[in-house]
Amino acid sequence: MRVAYDGTGFAGFAPNPGVETVGGALASAVERVARQPITLTCAGRTDAGVHAWGQVVSFDVDADRHTLDLAALQRSVNGLCGPAIVVRDIELAPDDFDARFSAQWRCYRYTVLNRDVPDPFLAATSWHVPTPLDLAGMRLGCDPFIGEHDFSSFCRKVEGKSLVRTVISADWDDLGDGVLRFEIVANAFCQQMVRAIVGTLVEVGQGKKHAGHVAAILRAEDRAFAGALAPPHGLSLWEVGYPDPAPSWARHDEPESDEVALGSP
Amino acid sequence: MRVAYDGTGFAGFAPNPGVETVGGALASAVERVARQPITLTCAGRTDAGVHAWGQVVSFDVDADRHTLDLAALQRSVNGLCGPAIVVRDIELAPDDFDARFSAQWRCYRYTVLNRDVPDPFLAATSWHVPTPLDLAGMRLGCDPFIGEHDFSSFCRKVEGKSLVRTVISADWDDLGDGVLRFEIVANAFCQQMVRAIVGTLVEVGQGKKHAGHVAAILRAEDRAFAGALAPPHGLSLWEVGYPDPAPSWARHDEPESDEVALGSP
Repeated sequence: MRVAYDGTGFAGFAPNPGVETVGGALASAVERVARQPITLTCAGRTDAGVHAWGQVVSFDVDADRHTLDLAALQRSVNGLCGPAIVVRDIELAPDDFDARFSAQWRCYRYTVLNRDVPDPFLAATSWHVPTPLDLAGMRLGCDPFIGEHDFSSFCRKVEGKSLVRTVISADWDDLGDGVLRFEIVANAFCQQMVRAIVGTLVEVGQGKKHAGHVAAILRAEDRAFAGALAPPHGLSLWEVGYPDPAPSWARHDEPESDEVALGSP
Repeated sequence: MRVAYDGTGFAGFAPNPGVETVGGALASAVERVARQPITLTCAGRTDAGVHAWGQVVSFDVDADRHTLDLAALQRSVNGLCGPAIVVRDIELAPDDFDARFSAQWRCYRYTVLNRDVPDPFLAATSWHVPTPLDLAGMRLGCDPFIGEHDFSSFCRKVEGKSLVRTVISADWDDLGDGVLRFEIVANAFCQQMVRAIVGTLVEVGQGKKHAGHVAAILRAEDRAFAGALAPPHGLSLWEVGYPDPAPSWARHDEPESDEVALGSP
């Protein structure tokens, strides 16, 4: 399933007993419709308050491949989960498909609203930064992230786990009216990595840090050197890429809504 | 003041003791900052759940015209009311200015999301209509509304009050991806008028009513003939027009954000 959600009211994706999570809501809806216990796997375990446009979720269901009515399953799950969670697409995947381990890359977007006066309709999906930002410096500060690096300076440390990731692209776009959008594609992300990178780049934009120092911050491999975490509500898991054979909508047969289609890197 | 608000959590604009309203929140914020009792007048008393991008609010304040710091007042009110309510502009008005009685026209927009699958990020500001809609018929059905009419078929009756209004323009626009936007400009609107018109036109789009019958529904001057009310959350008070001298932002010195500027009719 490809799933969009407004993460505002949820304690993240990962199912967690006693807490309202996106994965918990989705799993119990699918269980109710399919009448069997379901374990979901997702491409990216988004944190509390983080949104998704193209989260990918896979699960096994014990049913006859030829009589399973996927459109009815999608409608029922949307009826049970909506309006904050929406299954955009659903289809049968190859037997060895796994939303997490089959993924080749993830694309996240982060939106900053850089104007004096906020906007109530962007409040839930962007970070309002009223101080002037130097976009050129913020774009320059993206370059050091490209390539394979140890992201210890930008991640929550996890004992015994590698924090090496490969960033394929990272850049800011000025959408006009003070809307600045950061887009980053990597093979995978560590926890809080995008928010720490955005927080650091916004400090570059504010002149608190110098764009030329970002490479040194990365090399330090120490969380103390990077900037503060950007708030979660500006972040969205935008798209996930899979190799063929994969769900048809992950093969870029059609451009993504009114957005520029992201070419498979 | 020109005010934008996400009306989701509010019981409409009009201050109402014991209920959370936009006007109540605004008035108490202004009172707290200006340290005096304030009575607000608004251009359009929006219903519960209805949004605004360009609501106009006027009030008298006992202060020295030359030392009054309007930017500080705006910032403080935004700090107290945000993020759902935002004062976009604030300025001194001529002594005889009244947000309601000085207004020459009001522009409302209504957004319908006409696709099979909903969108969590449009859920709060559009009406999701999954059945196919005939946009050509809906546009044809707009024509009878233009001009001066008694809108009794499309309004909540109020004893002893005229329901005659002059509609200057009304049309649907296809913004792509199933987003259909209705925009209507009139000298003034009766209660629930836009929602009753939209509800009727959507029934035309669904084939439940014929576009050619809209004129007869209007002439009937009987609420029973029109369609059901469209839900409030698709509706937004977009812009209000004033004669000169008026607040500078009401004189269309600049185009409206990324939207097509609405020419003064």
